[in-house]
Amino acid sequence: MPVAVIAGVGLTAFGRQPGLGVRDLAQAAAVAAVTDAGIPLDRVAAVVVGNATQGATEGQHGIRGQIALSGLGLSPGPVINVENACASGTTALHVALAYVLSGMADVVLAVGVEVMTQAPHPDLLAAFEGSWDVADREAALDRLADFSRGVPVPSDAVELPGRTVFMDVYAAFARDHMRRFGTTQRQFAAVSAKNHAHSMHNPYAQYRKAFSIDEVLCGKTVLWPLTVPMCSPISDGAAAVVVCSADLADPARAVRVLGTALGHGGGWDGVDPQRHVSHQTALRAYAEAGVDPRDVDVAEVHDATAVGEIQQVEHMGLVPYGDGGPAAERGVTTVGGRIPVNPSGGLESRGHPIGATGLAQVHELVTQLRGEAGARQVDGARIALAENSGGLVGLEEAAVAVTVLEAPSRRRS
Amino acid sequence: MPVAVIAGVGLTAFGRQPGLGVRDLAQAAAVAAVTDAGIPLDRVAAVVVGNATQGATEGQHGIRGQIALSGLGLSPGPVINVENACASGTTALHVALAYVLSGMADVVLAVGVEVMTQAPHPDLLAAFEGSWDVADREAALDRLADFSRGVPVPSDAVELPGRTVFMDVYAAFARDHMRRFGTTQRQFAAVSAKNHAHSMHNPYAQYRKAFSIDEVLCGKTVLWPLTVPMCSPISDGAAAVVVCSADLADPARAVRVLGTALGHGGGWDGVDPQRHVSHQTALRAYAEAGVDPRDVDVAEVHDATAVGEIQQVEHMGLVPYGDGGPAAERGVTTVGGRIPVNPSGGLESRGHPIGATGLAQVHELVTQLRGEAGARQVDGARIALAENSGGLVGLEEAAVAVTVLEAPSRRRS
Repeated sequence: MPVAVIAGVGLTAFGRQPGLGVRDLAQAAAVAAVTDAGIPLDRVAAVVVGNATQGATEGQHGIRGQIALSGLGLSPGPVINVENACASGTTALHVALAYVLSGMADVVLAVGVEVMTQAPHPDLLAAFEGSWDVADREAALDRLADFSRGVPVPSDAVELPGRTVFMDVYAAFARDHMRRFGTTQRQFAAVSAKNHAHSMHNPYAQYRKAFSIDEVLCGKTVLWPLTVPMCSPISDGAAAVVVCSADLADPARAVRVLGTALGHGGGWDGVDPQRHVSHQTALRAYAEAGVDPRDVDVAEVHDATAVGEIQQVEHMGLVPYGDGGPAAERGVTTVGGRIPVNPSGGLESRGHPIGATGLAQVHELVTQLRGEAGARQVDGARIALAENSGGLVGLEEAAVAVTVLEAPSRRRS
Repeated sequence: MPVAVIAGVGLTAFGRQPGLGVRDLAQAAAVAAVTDAGIPLDRVAAVVVGNATQGATEGQHGIRGQIALSGLGLSPGPVINVENACASGTTALHVALAYVLSGMADVVLAVGVEVMTQAPHPDLLAAFEGSWDVADREAALDRLADFSRGVPVPSDAVELPGRTVFMDVYAAFARDHMRRFGTTQRQFAAVSAKNHAHSMHNPYAQYRKAFSIDEVLCGKTVLWPLTVPMCSPISDGAAAVVVCSADLADPARAVRVLGTALGHGGGWDGVDPQRHVSHQTALRAYAEAGVDPRDVDVAEVHDATAVGEIQQVEHMGLVPYGDGGPAAERGVTTVGGRIPVNPSGGLESRGHPIGATGLAQVHELVTQLRGEAGARQVDGARIALAENSGGLVGLEEAAVAVTVLEAPSRRRS
């Protein structure tokens, strides 16, 4: 049975990239990844491409990946287009791993790409809303309203028009967390301030500007308790990862995938968080990896908003339930703290080009595990965790991906 | 290394199915497949779902498969949404095989589903046109016009309004084949008459009405030389396949996948058909399977129109280049002939619900290889081939899937 490793990673800058389309970004990330792996493009035996919005925004369906990568000089093997909403990138990685482990291909390129800033806004909203069950929207909104009960909203709180529906979802999740655990708006702000500080040192990040906790709190309100700096922006960008059998990779730079779980379902009944699909998927990934949450040295989690990070560090078992907010305030999740989370800046500050996000997390963690993360390096990181989710996670059917990675067996640094 | 087999297949009726949506059809096919496999639904470890049009027609993107299968009682494992235009179904099978062979899951359900008759027509057209390179449409149409040069069109030939752009593509391919090989309109009609006769015996088929060659020729012209009975219809339907490791399947009914190749590219330069992506992908599938085109006892190929079947039986090496038309006229590809093609009725007569088509081909071939095809049974079929393609095959980037199957090792009949 082959052993699969991540041999190379590639990333474009995230953010507003006028004039660059899906093809430009996807090809740039693909070339960067194979260059990093030291494997020629024509040696790639299969490609898996994740994208979430190009159907809705550009009318490009069908064979998006083939079209995005045409002219690049790939071998004539499989190109598989995958989608799992905001988890599309990690889903591409998952399929790439299956290919390599199956022996069906020895070198597989996973690419995630999204162009969002140049799309007509109504179409982009349609793409977002299409990642819910479109026939069940009213019921989902009713369940969201339930989450918001019992949390007083300041009488002067305004709402940002034109926001995506996911901001309403996260605002409801935030109020739910406040009611159950006493989490404060200041703690949400602490998460965001931390992530914005991290991405000061990330050359790929959309934002490289520090915000104090008070500055985050003073940001424009999107929907209480969320302010603009707490929310992931609209972004363009691409990320790519080369997965191959271990014998084809440089052992000093290859990162081993210890565990990878992709889950679906809902499970959040408002009572027992351990039944939540995120927690259940994490348990499967840890079991496969043979590690414990305490073994994790660094994590990238899906902070589409600050509350997302708090929920996920709890579901991943990195901090106890209810301690996500206080832990951020105490600096536990800051680089230099006990368990640094989102050293890249996360979705909030690195940016969130949907299909690219999961692979951008892997890019960051591979960089960390190789000891090449510069000023944002987590010292001595050996075990890393990525969590990437799509859909109304917990509330109805959704996709959750958890990946556990290990540092190169013969890391030089 | 596990050996992967097809343990079960399930299909809904194809055709116009008022009141039934993606969820209804997908779940019916899924239940039929696991029932056929004798494996409980909660034993399914991963699911791969292929669909092509629901984004454009219903605004359902993101996590289509999770939503289509919600409430069915699946285990919490991976649900992966794949797309490859008209090859989406076989792409789902391909990923399912990778999962089983990798050891990442021991029982995987591949589902293909499409609802097309109930969608607003303009959106359906958008879905079709979205499976080309949307930024390159004019160039593709120019290349198509080149194919049509030099073939006189009858002066009284009318054009059917509201046809999909793929009919223009196939009409150009037909004229190209006529010019190069002297293929006649009557030979295209022979293909269609044969397929409509086959599906008289297929209870799942959209059409179960015989057409003589003259009746096919007298059909309304879609775009010369294609008439309505030569073209696949708009259809609703779903198909599902259970792939598992051989030890979990009944050896009397399990069908082994000898070879499976998924290719991308174009390659049709108008000169050397052997460089065409379809032929190249077939060569890879045969090599993996360790069989020769002469070993194939029965085939299902992608006859989105009659000319598609002629092109593909040639690219698959089942008949020499240029003999596709004459072979159909001689009855070579009829059940009872040397190499029966599309015993199900093919896309032309069984129907073509896009995402389901590739898995419906597999359903037919598994039924044939088990000796359970009744009045359309190909006697003694041991080796079967399926070819399923998506996009502007040959002309620009496209997806081509070729699968070679073998009869159960201990078939009873």
